[in-house]
Amino acid sequence: MRCMTPASTGPVSTGPVPIGPDLLACISRRAQTMTASAIREILKITQQPDVISFAGGLPAPELFPLDAVRQAAETALSKYGPAALQYSTTEGHLPLREWIAGRHGIPAANVQIVTGSQQGLDLLGKILIDEGDLVLVEAPTYLGALQSFQPYLPRYAEMPTDEGGIDVDALATLLAGLAAQGEKPKLLYAIPNFQNPTGRTLSLERRRRLVELTAQYGVLVIEDDPYGQLRFSGEALPSLYEIGLELAGDVDRNHVIYSSSFSKTLVPGLRDAWVEAAAPVITKLIQAKQGADLHTPTLNQMMITELLPLLPAQIETVKAAYRERGAHMLSQMDEFFPAGVTYTRPQGGMFLWVTLPEGVDTVALLPRAVENKVAYVPGQPFFALGGGANTMRMSYSSATPEQITQGMRALGATFREALG
Amino acid sequence: MRCMTPASTGPVSTGPVPIGPDLLACISRRAQTMTASAIREILKITQQPDVISFAGGLPAPELFPLDAVRQAAETALSKYGPAALQYSTTEGHLPLREWIAGRHGIPAANVQIVTGSQQGLDLLGKILIDEGDLVLVEAPTYLGALQSFQPYLPRYAEMPTDEGGIDVDALATLLAGLAAQGEKPKLLYAIPNFQNPTGRTLSLERRRRLVELTAQYGVLVIEDDPYGQLRFSGEALPSLYEIGLELAGDVDRNHVIYSSSFSKTLVPGLRDAWVEAAAPVITKLIQAKQGADLHTPTLNQMMITELLPLLPAQIETVKAAYRERGAHMLSQMDEFFPAGVTYTRPQGGMFLWVTLPEGVDTVALLPRAVENKVAYVPGQPFFALGGGANTMRMSYSSATPEQITQGMRALGATFREALG
Repeated sequence: MRCMTPASTGPVSTGPVPIGPDLLACISRRAQTMTASAIREILKITQQPDVISFAGGLPAPELFPLDAVRQAAETALSKYGPAALQYSTTEGHLPLREWIAGRHGIPAANVQIVTGSQQGLDLLGKILIDEGDLVLVEAPTYLGALQSFQPYLPRYAEMPTDEGGIDVDALATLLAGLAAQGEKPKLLYAIPNFQNPTGRTLSLERRRRLVELTAQYGVLVIEDDPYGQLRFSGEALPSLYEIGLELAGDVDRNHVIYSSSFSKTLVPGLRDAWVEAAAPVITKLIQAKQGADLHTPTLNQMMITELLPLLPAQIETVKAAYRERGAHMLSQMDEFFPAGVTYTRPQGGMFLWVTLPEGVDTVALLPRAVENKVAYVPGQPFFALGGGANTMRMSYSSATPEQITQGMRALGATFREALG
Repeated sequence: MRCMTPASTGPVSTGPVPIGPDLLACISRRAQTMTASAIREILKITQQPDVISFAGGLPAPELFPLDAVRQAAETALSKYGPAALQYSTTEGHLPLREWIAGRHGIPAANVQIVTGSQQGLDLLGKILIDEGDLVLVEAPTYLGALQSFQPYLPRYAEMPTDEGGIDVDALATLLAGLAAQGEKPKLLYAIPNFQNPTGRTLSLERRRRLVELTAQYGVLVIEDDPYGQLRFSGEALPSLYEIGLELAGDVDRNHVIYSSSFSKTLVPGLRDAWVEAAAPVITKLIQAKQGADLHTPTLNQMMITELLPLLPAQIETVKAAYRERGAHMLSQMDEFFPAGVTYTRPQGGMFLWVTLPEGVDTVALLPRAVENKVAYVPGQPFFALGGGANTMRMSYSSATPEQITQGMRALGATFREALG
């Protein structure tokens, strides 16, 4: 397994050394499987002037509490002095961990601060996934999770989903079938609230059944919950983590691991998120985090802590905006989309999911949409095992009413053309 | 390879589910090999009141440009508004990358911003190291690099070192011997300037020879250079990266990868560092970074950019302090240490290295030192393959003259006791 070819076997030459043939051959096997995010590539073609894009997944920047963040930086630097800029503990800023732990009534020792929940997923992949381990994911699922897990070379199995998210009866059948083949999944990855990309939410009954089934079959669960606090309609539901806690009766025996973030409720650019897990998992997570970046930036954690009193009001602001934008997008879809095009009606979060009739290819359709000055993300990259060619994700979080109206009109026209 | 035992094969029970036996059994093989930093554990016993500790590796916090950082936060938030708090590109803030690239006269496209150079090492391990790949390291080397690489399950070979750092003649022999066995190292990891832990610096002649030898044998080089700008005596030397660039004649064919950081020159708590590398490496680094944490915090990168005009003066301040502290520590060692104890005389950086007579065990000696109210880090954890029981690392970066005098007196007394 040679990577660079030796420059020469004789004496060292004095001119430029013919290194090669190819540094690429030095890249590890796991990294050979990495690709740039498909979305990232797609976003490039959508970033033309005058194109209204619903392709991104950005929180609304005009709602960021800019002055409060400025004040939080000031306060953290005054309160902690140089300690706000010094190396700090791998586990994270204790007052922040205590606040997070308080939400679920667990010890702060079970909370690890991470540099964005993307890092939480990467570290969980690192400490849990051996090459070839079977990972259960929703179809479709969060693309970023697939990117985080991929370097650890898992195999994927897709859980069937319907309008209510994961179909737990089908999951029971899947698990029984796998068990009959002697296959045991290592973990199940799920986003129960306002899923990215579909906007779907798992019912309480399904949550209970999912937690029981995974306990029964001995499958770890990673619950990714960045949007849970952004529910703008319907009743709040307990997390898989809380159900798991009740079932296990012991925080250190809960087989559900919880991941969440301040990116969607406060601001994403400070990169502050966390993982809650049983001691055997948290212990390894700390060790992995230490090797991965020592700790999350000190000042940022202190700033987020200073912003916590503002959080409830900020969440209300964000929810009100996303409720209005989501409702407006749906009303415009109702008005402009042709028959045969269906879409989800999220109860929170930032995304909804559009399904076109079978046979329509949303990747092929995108250049046409861009000509019509509107953009979306094709759904296909969100499927671990392919498929979903006739689907797309739309984000309403950072669009104005005018952009939504104009965009849905243009998209409706594009669909009509495609459907003949 | 079962991890959790299924709770039951019959109907789901209603009470607490007997999950287990052990979540630990779910931990991946690579994570089973992770351990908490030995230093971290050692630091705990040194953190007693009244103990003067030279064990840590913290930059001097009283030198942090606190007001300038406060102003930089203010300026970045005013200049960029919500964009300072939004998601941003994986590669990093362009003005910062351009400034970094300018130092070596390379394109910004060859610079990746990372969340502390620890992350750079982790990502380089991820994209370069396959299980079993041979990695050449100094003996001793930076413990954190071993922690970063470990999850990717390399084998290590140690390069012999002497007072001048890596012994390049011995390296030539080592490479020839490995080649004769059909073994080709994947990469060589080195800290040429004021090495952590020894404080040693590689001469220009050795640098040239190291770069040529690795090119000749087709071995990638990771040059870790967090301290290079903190030279307080002697002449500045070209980096391995610069020598590699000259040799290759093309930034995208340079087999040396460069890693550095703002942690030791400005502040560590913002976690801003970078990697410079040829396109085939940078391309994979970007993809790995995207899966690992999407991007380094936006505001922090903008703050560091605002602080760049201050950097030359700040470096002078830090160098002056470390020059004085280092010189004082050496003078006190000269005065208080018994014959038979030797130590390095660094030309920069934060560390020096003490070698006791063979047979003395610095791990066993540490509790005695702590009784004498002084602490150090035993040298053994810095060796990839063990050894170094009679060595220790001392940091002079954040100690007062009084602490240094008192500490060296106490350590000298401890040594005398040990040496009988």
